[in-house]
Amino acid sequence: MIYLDNGATTLYKPDSVIDAVVNAMRTQGNASRGAHGATLSASRTVYDARVKIAKLFNFDTPSNVIFTCNSTEALNIAINGVIKSGDRVVSTDTEHNSVLRPLYHLQKVKNIDLQFVKADNSGLLNISDFEKLIDDKTKVVVVNHISNLTGNVNDIKRISEIVHNKNAILIVDGSQSAGTRNVDVKELGIDIYCFTGHKGLYGPQGTGGLLVKDGIEIDAWKRGGSGVKTYEEEQPHEYPTRLEAGTLNSHGIAGLSAAIDFLNETGVDNIEKKELELTKYFYNEVTKIDGIKVYGDFSWAGVDTPLGHAAIVSLNVKDYDSGEVSDALSNDFGIATRPGAHCAPRLHIALGTKHQGAVRFSFSYFTTYEELDAAINALKEIAS
Amino acid sequence: MIYLDNGATTLYKPDSVIDAVVNAMRTQGNASRGAHGATLSASRTVYDARVKIAKLFNFDTPSNVIFTCNSTEALNIAINGVIKSGDRVVSTDTEHNSVLRPLYHLQKVKNIDLQFVKADNSGLLNISDFEKLIDDKTKVVVVNHISNLTGNVNDIKRISEIVHNKNAILIVDGSQSAGTRNVDVKELGIDIYCFTGHKGLYGPQGTGGLLVKDGIEIDAWKRGGSGVKTYEEEQPHEYPTRLEAGTLNSHGIAGLSAAIDFLNETGVDNIEKKELELTKYFYNEVTKIDGIKVYGDFSWAGVDTPLGHAAIVSLNVKDYDSGEVSDALSNDFGIATRPGAHCAPRLHIALGTKHQGAVRFSFSYFTTYEELDAAINALKEIAS
Repeated sequence: MIYLDNGATTLYKPDSVIDAVVNAMRTQGNASRGAHGATLSASRTVYDARVKIAKLFNFDTPSNVIFTCNSTEALNIAINGVIKSGDRVVSTDTEHNSVLRPLYHLQKVKNIDLQFVKADNSGLLNISDFEKLIDDKTKVVVVNHISNLTGNVNDIKRISEIVHNKNAILIVDGSQSAGTRNVDVKELGIDIYCFTGHKGLYGPQGTGGLLVKDGIEIDAWKRGGSGVKTYEEEQPHEYPTRLEAGTLNSHGIAGLSAAIDFLNETGVDNIEKKELELTKYFYNEVTKIDGIKVYGDFSWAGVDTPLGHAAIVSLNVKDYDSGEVSDALSNDFGIATRPGAHCAPRLHIALGTKHQGAVRFSFSYFTTYEELDAAINALKEIAS
Repeated sequence: MIYLDNGATTLYKPDSVIDAVVNAMRTQGNASRGAHGATLSASRTVYDARVKIAKLFNFDTPSNVIFTCNSTEALNIAINGVIKSGDRVVSTDTEHNSVLRPLYHLQKVKNIDLQFVKADNSGLLNISDFEKLIDDKTKVVVVNHISNLTGNVNDIKRISEIVHNKNAILIVDGSQSAGTRNVDVKELGIDIYCFTGHKGLYGPQGTGGLLVKDGIEIDAWKRGGSGVKTYEEEQPHEYPTRLEAGTLNSHGIAGLSAAIDFLNETGVDNIEKKELELTKYFYNEVTKIDGIKVYGDFSWAGVDTPLGHAAIVSLNVKDYDSGEVSDALSNDFGIATRPGAHCAPRLHIALGTKHQGAVRFSFSYFTTYEELDAAINALKEIAS
């Protein structure tokens, strides 16, 4: 199988990641529960992972690295934990349902004033629209770093300046950016950065988290055992315990920790550069094929760009149903892609693909040009 | 190391569980996202696990087997999802903070009328107290199957009859019972059964879930991508999607599925029988040592009992701090136990161990009599 669905989950994990999970399953107890060797080993693994993640994102406070089971949980914690009744909240048309559905729910139950920056038919957001929508009453802005559907990159630094000029809080959905590019949360001015472990970070499923800038208060989400302050009726106040009730997935976190070692050894810059080249090559070849329409902003494909683009190319072939094209790619050519709606309903509407969906090709550092050529040739056959 | 902290997490996982996780990490895509081989493989793994779990607990509806990252999340989902403002709720002194803290929180924010069945100084609950406290106004009863501190087993079948006579809903915390005994949710009359994967089920950390009896409505918890019904603003209504936003931990679930195969091959009856014998032996030996006080109900230790007991023996040595005893066991004898408060604050108060805590010894199917003898001899040395 040629796996081109890395935007859903990276399938090829470094061996060191798998080895770390195996080792953890053989040796680790329950993190932060007691003080014998096995539990201390788990605690150390978790603590080391917090430190490594903080360093990867140039984040100062390892104790504010909160582990969750995926980025959806991280986003639910952030969105529900900072937005209060009646708050004015700004988000965008390019968001995933992991942002949209929590916000729609708060519209119903907390009567929030929810506004969306509109996307154009390339899925692009206009910075001046942020300036118009974010006003003195705005409390929270939620925006993705990279669209999971188009691969477009949002200019978080400029958005952050607008947000902070109005003293609002910026929550960034980093599901597609963590590991695929250098994310410096200080330089970008991110207050809460939500990430998943199993995509660009090359870690196991069941891992993810959020970085909470010092001073940002997020209400507890789950409540339960914490290994500390047993007699307090409230979930303990300090991070990370406030947001981490119950047994942590120290097996998965051990894998995530090894994955970050892999990223550091490989160099995230090198990963980004390679993925950008793969994407440019694929984009330039498929747009030569009659009947193929690519979505998103690829104006950069001919020139360099400071923001770059994720290793995602979503397209359609003529008016063919995207599910049928993806099935043909899988069944006839052994190529794995993802069709249909990509949990990004507002963006599909902006792109005009609500009914057709789109076939998403998404690459990783392990994708080869031979695999891309196979996909390009398959698309030529399907289109002809 | 002699690992006697299986109540926190079982450390020795069957090789087949580890192999299944490795295989999943090498082959599985993102469950329920698309239709190529890797994603279908993940989807099948998850579906098979739902079916196996349903069968293990004699539960009729695999689609109502909901996966979470641990039992704390399952309990938070159940407790927050069924209890409404002003509801009368009955729980017990023997609960873990994963039950107590969510309930205390609802007392504050939903003004629930929260009542507790009292535990005696053996940690026992009196069934007649359930009859007194559960009245026509009671909406929800939350009770553990087995105490994580004493190992006492609650008579869920009788409690269920009382609960259902008053048309209330019974939520059971099965963190210590899943896998350590046959749990037949139909026979026991459980409406919502919450379990963790990494203890008696011998699965990986990062897994767990809840079984929701057909007809019981639980509000959505996390909201986000579901792979279906992208254009609905609400989290899709049907189980399991209603309660499972975001990417599932299909790597961990693959391990959990293999763990259930191990349980079926070994026989949960055999596991329970072996653990009961280990526990009886340990109890009888340590109670011969001067200065050792064991907590919980061991009246069964001389005779058979229909309810049995979990493989948990919590004790103190004279008036020694439990942390110091546990440290001595670990440092001087290489024996892993858990001291202190066990996230069960009301029960420690009932037992009179709020300040001393207790040293918990907890066994698994893989514990040997040689390991127990080493622990018994170590306790003799410490006590003398």
